[in-house]
Amino acid sequence: MINIGFPDGAVRQFEAGVTALEIAKSISEGLARKILVASVNGQVWDITRPIHEDASLRLITWDDAEGKNTFWHSTAHLMAEAVEQLFPGVKFWVGPALEKGFYYDIDLGDRKLTEEDLTAIEKKMQELSKQNNKYLRKEISKAEAIQLFETKGDEYKLDLLTNLEDGSITLYTQGSFTDLCRGPHIPSTGLIKALKLTNIAGAYWKGDEKNKQLTRLYGISFPNQKELDEYLHLLEEAKKRDHRKLGKELGIYTMDDEIGQGLPLWMPNGTIIIEELEKLAKETEGKGGYKRVVTPHIAKESLYHTSGHLPYYADSMFPPMEMDGEKYYLKAMNCPHHHKIFSAEPKSYRDLPYRIAEYGTCYRYEQSGELFGLMRVRCLHMNDAHIYCSKEQFFEEFKAVNQMYLKYFKIFGIDKYVMRLSLHDPEKLGKKYVNEPELWLETESMVRKVLIETGTPFIEVQDEAAFYGPKIDVQIWSIIGREFTLATNQVDFNSGRKFKLNYTTQNNESDTPLIIHRAPLGTHERFIGFLLEHYAGKFPVWLAPLQVKILPISDKFLEYASKVKETLANLNIRVEIDERQEKIGKKIREAELSRVPYMLIVGEKEMQENLLSVRRQGKGDIGSITLDSFVENVSKEIYERSSEE
Amino acid sequence: MINIGFPDGAVRQFEAGVTALEIAKSISEGLARKILVASVNGQVWDITRPIHEDASLRLITWDDAEGKNTFWHSTAHLMAEAVEQLFPGVKFWVGPALEKGFYYDIDLGDRKLTEEDLTAIEKKMQELSKQNNKYLRKEISKAEAIQLFETKGDEYKLDLLTNLEDGSITLYTQGSFTDLCRGPHIPSTGLIKALKLTNIAGAYWKGDEKNKQLTRLYGISFPNQKELDEYLHLLEEAKKRDHRKLGKELGIYTMDDEIGQGLPLWMPNGTIIIEELEKLAKETEGKGGYKRVVTPHIAKESLYHTSGHLPYYADSMFPPMEMDGEKYYLKAMNCPHHHKIFSAEPKSYRDLPYRIAEYGTCYRYEQSGELFGLMRVRCLHMNDAHIYCSKEQFFEEFKAVNQMYLKYFKIFGIDKYVMRLSLHDPEKLGKKYVNEPELWLETESMVRKVLIETGTPFIEVQDEAAFYGPKIDVQIWSIIGREFTLATNQVDFNSGRKFKLNYTTQNNESDTPLIIHRAPLGTHERFIGFLLEHYAGKFPVWLAPLQVKILPISDKFLEYASKVKETLANLNIRVEIDERQEKIGKKIREAELSRVPYMLIVGEKEMQENLLSVRRQGKGDIGSITLDSFVENVSKEIYERSSEE
Repeated sequence: MINIGFPDGAVRQFEAGVTALEIAKSISEGLARKILVASVNGQVWDITRPIHEDASLRLITWDDAEGKNTFWHSTAHLMAEAVEQLFPGVKFWVGPALEKGFYYDIDLGDRKLTEEDLTAIEKKMQELSKQNNKYLRKEISKAEAIQLFETKGDEYKLDLLTNLEDGSITLYTQGSFTDLCRGPHIPSTGLIKALKLTNIAGAYWKGDEKNKQLTRLYGISFPNQKELDEYLHLLEEAKKRDHRKLGKELGIYTMDDEIGQGLPLWMPNGTIIIEELEKLAKETEGKGGYKRVVTPHIAKESLYHTSGHLPYYADSMFPPMEMDGEKYYLKAMNCPHHHKIFSAEPKSYRDLPYRIAEYGTCYRYEQSGELFGLMRVRCLHMNDAHIYCSKEQFFEEFKAVNQMYLKYFKIFGIDKYVMRLSLHDPEKLGKKYVNEPELWLETESMVRKVLIETGTPFIEVQDEAAFYGPKIDVQIWSIIGREFTLATNQVDFNSGRKFKLNYTTQNNESDTPLIIHRAPLGTHERFIGFLLEHYAGKFPVWLAPLQVKILPISDKFLEYASKVKETLANLNIRVEIDERQEKIGKKIREAELSRVPYMLIVGEKEMQENLLSVRRQGKGDIGSITLDSFVENVSKEIYERSSEE
Repeated sequence: MINIGFPDGAVRQFEAGVTALEIAKSISEGLARKILVASVNGQVWDITRPIHEDASLRLITWDDAEGKNTFWHSTAHLMAEAVEQLFPGVKFWVGPALEKGFYYDIDLGDRKLTEEDLTAIEKKMQELSKQNNKYLRKEISKAEAIQLFETKGDEYKLDLLTNLEDGSITLYTQGSFTDLCRGPHIPSTGLIKALKLTNIAGAYWKGDEKNKQLTRLYGISFPNQKELDEYLHLLEEAKKRDHRKLGKELGIYTMDDEIGQGLPLWMPNGTIIIEELEKLAKETEGKGGYKRVVTPHIAKESLYHTSGHLPYYADSMFPPMEMDGEKYYLKAMNCPHHHKIFSAEPKSYRDLPYRIAEYGTCYRYEQSGELFGLMRVRCLHMNDAHIYCSKEQFFEEFKAVNQMYLKYFKIFGIDKYVMRLSLHDPEKLGKKYVNEPELWLETESMVRKVLIETGTPFIEVQDEAAFYGPKIDVQIWSIIGREFTLATNQVDFNSGRKFKLNYTTQNNESDTPLIIHRAPLGTHERFIGFLLEHYAGKFPVWLAPLQVKILPISDKFLEYASKVKETLANLNIRVEIDERQEKIGKKIREAELSRVPYMLIVGEKEMQENLLSVRRQGKGDIGSITLDSFVENVSKEIYERSSEE
C-alpha cells in the first residue's frame, strides 16, 4: 500500500501501481470524467500512469491552467495525425501549447496550405477525435529512439534527440501517429469535442532565418462547442474593438516614423479623453488631500544611482545624453523626482501624510518587437502619486488608495477585477528582499486587512514582492472578457532611507516615512487602449470627444441649430452642427458611425415648438424634448460621469 | 562750407571744422545743454570734435541708449581718476559701460577695498565732478603710446596696445587722469551729478583663472539725483521681489543638484499657479476655436533634418540618445510634432483654420553660466499653439492672436508693453530669407495693419525677421519697471512646404497652409518668474496658492472654523485653518508674511453672529461680513480673475 496525500491535507492508502484516474473514480465518477492530468509530487502526469510510491496528488481539470495546456498540446498531436494522414511524408518539428491554443511547426516540402486544406484538416481531426484513441505513453532508450527516427528519415526528431538524455525519453502514440514527446497528455482524443484552425504562418527552423522555413499551423480546441463559439465570438468582438483600428478611425492617436516607434501623438479627440481622465484624477486626488507637483523629464545619472535603478534597471531606460561632462537620463519613473520634492523643505509629523501627485510622463525602453499600439509604448503618461506617511497612518492611507481603485472601477463599469498581492519570502530576507522582517509582516498584514475589509477580490502570491515591500498588481477585464494589467501599487520601506527622507516626530525625533507608490488609472496609453476596447469606441457622454451633434434637416434650420449649439457650448458641452447640404438620412448614418452619443435632429416642427428630436447612440430615436430638458439631462449625465446609456 | 544732413531729412551748411556742440547751439541752447555725444556718419563722436567733411548728423542725449552708454563709460574714467588719487600707483585694465552702469577692472596690488574705501571714492568722484573737467581727446602714434606706458610701467595698457593699429590710437584725459581709450566721452565731468558705487567683485585678468585676480568695481551714475534715487529704489524693490528668493519662501519651485541645473521642480504651490495659468489658457484657447493635442518629448533625428533645425540649431538642443541604431533628440520646440498632427489626417478648406495648442515641454541647452533662476532654464513649459490657415484667413487669425495678448496683459495688469516687429531685408531674399518677395510684403503689411488697428504699441526693426517670415517679439515691463521678453509670435510660410502639409481648396486644388507660431503666455518658467516680481509674491486671489486662511482666536472656535472651511472648500476655494494654539497676533503676522490674500478671524462674536472678521493682504482689517457675503464676493473675484485688491 502507498500513501496518497490530497491538497486538503487528507491522506488515503491505495495499492501501489494505482493511477490518478482510479483514485478519481474512487472519489466520484463525475470527477473521473473531468480530470485531464494529475500533479504527482509536483510533476504533471498522465492520469493512466501508475503511481508506485507515496505521493502528494492534485487532480487537474479543464478549469486549471495545466489542464488547458495539456488539452491543447494533445490537440496539436491530433492535428499532426490528421496532417500526416492527408499529406503522407510530411515531417514535424515541435508542437507546443500557447496561452490560448497551440501550434505545430511542419515541414510540408514544397506544399503550401490553402483554406480548403485547413477545412480538410479540421474535418479529419474531428473524425479522429470520434475514434476516441488513447494517448499511449512509452519509455524508450535513446539508442532505440535514434534507430526509429533514422529509419523514418526524420532529421527533426533526430535533432531533438541530441539534447535528450537516456532514461528520460518517451514516445506518445494515438491512432496512427507517434511522436517523440515528454508529455503528459489527456487520456484520449474523444475529449476534444470542438476545434478550429486559426492561422498559418511561416517560421524558420529554430527561429534562424538561415534555416529552412517551416509551416506553423495554429489552432484552438475546447471540451464543448459552446466554449469554442464563445471564444470565436470574443475573437471577432476583440477584432472589431481593436484599439489600434478604433484609435485611427476616431482620431484618438497617431504614430509617425519620423517621431519614432512606441511614441503616440495624441490627436485632438484623444487629448479630450486625456483631459477628462486627468480632470477626474485631479478632482479625486484633490478630495483625497493630494497636492500636485510638476517635475522635469530628465535627471542626472547620480539620481538613479541613489535610487538604485542604475545600473540594474539600465536596460529598461533610454540611453543617456552626455552634456557638460555629465550623463542625463530620461526618467523611467517619477519616484526619485517626488522624493526630491519631499526633501526640499523640512517636514514634521504635522505635514504627514504628505501626498503628491503628478501625471508624469516617463520613458521606458521596450524592444521594437514588443511594441503594440497603445498597450506597449515607450512614452507613458502615468497617473502617479506618492504618499509619505508614518507606520500608524499606513493602514488608513492604503485603504483610501484601495477605495480610489474601487471608485474608478465603478465609474468605468469594470465589474471583473482582481488584486494580485505579492508577498516576500522570509528565507530571502537580506538577499531578494530588504531585511526588515517585522515591517514585512506588518505591512503585508495591513494590506491584506484592507483587501478583506473592503471586500476586494484578491489572490496572494508568495515570493513575488518588490525588493522594498509588498506590491499589488491590478488585473481588470474588459466587457468582452479580455484581461489587462492596469497598474501596480507598492509599499516601500527602502527608498525613504536611500534618499535620506525624514520628518520630526511628535517626540521631536527624526524618523523615515513609509512610502506608498500608486497609479490607479495606470497610464493614459494603456487605459485609453483598454477603454477603446471596453466601450468599442462608444464612450459615455462625459468622455466622448464630441458629445452632441446637431443635424438640421435643411439650411432653413441652421439658425435654430446655431441657437441650440450656442446654449450647449456655453455650458462647455462639446457640440457641432452638421452644416452640409446632405439628406438627413445620410447625416444620421454618418453621425451614428462617428459614435457621437447624442444626435439632435432639428426641422420645421422642432423649430416651431422649440423642441429637439433626440437620437441616442445605439438606441435610435428616443423622442422629442425641450432644449431646457435636454440641457438638464445631459448636464446631469456628464456631471455624474454616468456610464448608462 | 560743408553739408550737414539731419535725421528729419533737412540739410544745412556749416563752416568746415564745426563741432556737433556748435551745431546744437545754432539750433537751441537748451538742446546744446542736453547733448552728450553725436552720431557722425553712423559713428558716435565727442561733441567737441571738429567735423571737416559733409556728414549726416544725429544729436544724442541721455534719452538714447548711446547717450547712457557714453555717460557711464565717462563715469568709469571719473572713478578711475578718484581711485588713482586715493591710491597712487594702482593700474587699470578696462572700464566699459554695462546695460545699467559701468565697471572698471583695477590692479590694486595687495589692497582690498572696504566699505569705507567705497564711500571715500564716491566722495572723491563728487569732488572731481564739481571741478567740471573736460574730457580731452588726443590722437597719438603707437610708438609714442608705447613709450608713454613703458615709462609709467603699465603692463596692462601695453598689452592693450599690441592689438591696436597705428593711426587709430587715442588718449583721453580729464583732470589728472589719462587713459588709453577709443572714446567717445561726454564733454565734461560736471554732467555727472549723481553717482553710486554698487558692488566689488574679483575678476581674473582676461577672464582666465591662471591670471592675476583684479578688483572689479561697479557703479552707476545719472544726470540728476532724482533718477539715481529712483534707480536705487527699483534695485531695492527688485531685490525684495527677486523671484528666486520669493520662489523659495513661497514654496513655488526648487532646484536639486541630482536632477540638474536649469531644471526646476515645481512644488505644490508653484503647481497651483501652473494649473491656474493652464486653465486660463485652455479656456481662452477653447473659446478661440483651438483644439488641444499632446505630443511626446522626443523624436528621431530625421524629424529635425526635415524641419531644418539640424544641423544648424544643434548647439541649442540637448545631445542625442542613441538607440536601436537611431538618434533620438529631446524636442527643443513643438512645431515639428504639431505639423505631424496636421498631416496625420487629410485636410480640406473646411478644416481651416486648424488651430492646435499644447502646453508642450521643451528642452534647450543653455551654458551653465547663463542659467538664472526661472528666467534662463533648460526645461520650458510653453504655452504653444500653431495655426494653419489660408492666406485669406491670415489677417483675422493674426488679429485674434494679438487680441489674446491684449486680453492677457489686462488680466495680469501689464500696462507697459511693446511689440517689436522684425521685418525682412529685400536684398537678402533667397539667402537670409525665404525667396517669396510677395508673401513677405503681404504678411508684413497684414501684421502691421493688425498692430495699428488694435492700437498696439509697436516698433519696426529691419532685417531681423526669422528665415521663414516676419516675427514679433513681445516686451513687457513689470510693475516696478523691469523689462522682460515674454514671447515670440511668428509667421511661417516655409515649414508647410518642408513638411509637405497641404489641404484641398474649394476648387479642389492642393495648397500649402500658412502657419502662425504663437505663445502668448510664453513659458511657465519665465512667466511665473515675472509674476513673482510683478506681484511681489502677493498674487491676486485667483492665482494665490492658498486663498483663504482661517484664524480661530482659540480652540473653542475650531468647530465654527471647520464649518467655514468646509463651505469654502466645497466651492473649490483653497482654504486652510491655522489650528495651532498660538496667540491671534502671531497667527495674523505669520499669515500676512505667507502672503495669503484673505485672513478670516473667528472668535466669540463671529461664532455667535455667524460672521467673519476679514483681513485683506496689504490692507489690514476690512470689517465683518456674513459667510454668505464673503463667499459671494470672493467667488466673484476668483471667477473674474480680478487683480484689484
